[in-house]
Amino acid sequence: MGVMPESVAIREVGPRDGLQNEEPIPTDAKVRLLDALSRTGVRRIEAVSFVHPRAIPQMADADEVWQRATRVDGVRYSALVPNTRGAQRALAAGFTEVEVVVSASDTHNRRNVNRSTDESLDDLAELIDLLHGADARAEVIIATSFGCPYEGDIDPVRVASIVDRVVRDGADRVAFGDTTGMGTPRRVRELLTAVRERNAEIPVLLHFHNTRGTALANMLTALELGVTEFDASVGGLGGCPYAPGASGNLATEEAVHMLHDMGIDTGIDLDALIEVAELAEELTGRRLPSGVLRAGPRTRLTPMPRS
Amino acid sequence: MGVMPESVAIREVGPRDGLQNEEPIPTDAKVRLLDALSRTGVRRIEAVSFVHPRAIPQMADADEVWQRATRVDGVRYSALVPNTRGAQRALAAGFTEVEVVVSASDTHNRRNVNRSTDESLDDLAELIDLLHGADARAEVIIATSFGCPYEGDIDPVRVASIVDRVVRDGADRVAFGDTTGMGTPRRVRELLTAVRERNAEIPVLLHFHNTRGTALANMLTALELGVTEFDASVGGLGGCPYAPGASGNLATEEAVHMLHDMGIDTGIDLDALIEVAELAEELTGRRLPSGVLRAGPRTRLTPMPRS
Repeated sequence: MGVMPESVAIREVGPRDGLQNEEPIPTDAKVRLLDALSRTGVRRIEAVSFVHPRAIPQMADADEVWQRATRVDGVRYSALVPNTRGAQRALAAGFTEVEVVVSASDTHNRRNVNRSTDESLDDLAELIDLLHGADARAEVIIATSFGCPYEGDIDPVRVASIVDRVVRDGADRVAFGDTTGMGTPRRVRELLTAVRERNAEIPVLLHFHNTRGTALANMLTALELGVTEFDASVGGLGGCPYAPGASGNLATEEAVHMLHDMGIDTGIDLDALIEVAELAEELTGRRLPSGVLRAGPRTRLTPMPRS
Repeated sequence: MGVMPESVAIREVGPRDGLQNEEPIPTDAKVRLLDALSRTGVRRIEAVSFVHPRAIPQMADADEVWQRATRVDGVRYSALVPNTRGAQRALAAGFTEVEVVVSASDTHNRRNVNRSTDESLDDLAELIDLLHGADARAEVIIATSFGCPYEGDIDPVRVASIVDRVVRDGADRVAFGDTTGMGTPRRVRELLTAVRERNAEIPVLLHFHNTRGTALANMLTALELGVTEFDASVGGLGGCPYAPGASGNLATEEAVHMLHDMGIDTGIDLDALIEVAELAEELTGRRLPSGVLRAGPRTRLTPMPRS
């Protein structure tokens, strides 16, 4: 094991990426979840996305959720946007950190937005300029970075060249999305190595899914390589509802549980976070896949049996 | 990441440890599962345990299962026994590899067998002699090696001293059981370091549970430390039925999936193994927690959409 970081910044994505992939819940419930998360000590939250309500009805009330949320000092909130229109809405709502997505897989990108990866990249430069012009930071999330369900492996050099491009266009950070859980320790190492050979300076964030059980092994590998920013979703919110039980997003409490055990600070109160995961189950009415939610942290003991 | 081993020996424990922690299934079903596993290329299988049928009704037909099973050349089969009587039954049935269990936690050991860890250790020497006298190999499984649900952390030095003792008494191998999923990368590293400082030579095997999502991260850590023997259970069989959805044993196909992706040989045909996991679901009538069973390996692509 290499030298581990002292501190890791978890970005909680349950309110956006999580809820976007669950059955819709009421606005009140979304505000409750967001507010509860803001009080866990987490340092970053992806709060909403500004997408067309026909495309993603789960986020139709993004403006209202964000206006009603109680923003906590010290928490950095961000929004995801698909295009210029979304970016304008995010800026109008006061966001100063915005994420945009492009897929490393051409096929996946075409399926999502009906254009090639290159065509999407052509649009990004303008979008980044728009954000910078309003003093907002722009993060580019590169989906299918660890593999594409249609194309299979994605050459890390292709992903690295996309990083080159978006860095040139002004991106402040890149995130690598393991969209369908194809990431493994080997793929994490290969991708980070390829990216850093060409762009050692750009801050990177990793977004893992636990589809095949590898999320924490992937995180461990990334920690060894010095990565200190990760997405995670409270309770594991966001598991594809059409495949019950199939894990989606890495559960925040599983990530925090392992990090804290390693002595790595996250700022998060794990017990408080587990209570929010319980709330997330209540609000979605769905049994969430998080093991730490189910079993509690390893420090939670079973009462001694009476003799 | 240190140098990885070229090859790993997985011991498939579904037929014993897995089925012992599921609702009982018919003898025919057990034989079908065992035979199907023998044809996957797996090199070791824990086939049955010889325990009192009142204690564990799931294993009441161990002799019949074993007699009816089709043993495949090149597969090493083993049995778990709780005591001398069980060891005699295992030897009579022709086993040449036998596992016995003792718990590192005194409280846990007392809960299981109503005696202290030291008292159990006193019995082990005789049991090992009995096995050696019949040319069988004796493995001592040390339960709660990574923590006890009643006592909490278990000092790695205590576990290491138990290893000293059983090595002195003739054990051929020690296994460290993560009985309730309290293992983490940090705990794995601390335990292996403590054990090897005192006993560099004894072969070790690790048995992880995925209760808190850490099983593959733990395996990755152990691989970095040169461990090449692991237990795993097809489909993740053996998750405590009283806590539905709570993962128990590491699923064999999740372990194999990650190992093969790293270029580490296991001898196992992953597709064949996944078919056995499907069979295990059919035979137990229970949805098993394995992600790779659910989603398939990362190399299994989604058909291209028709345009």
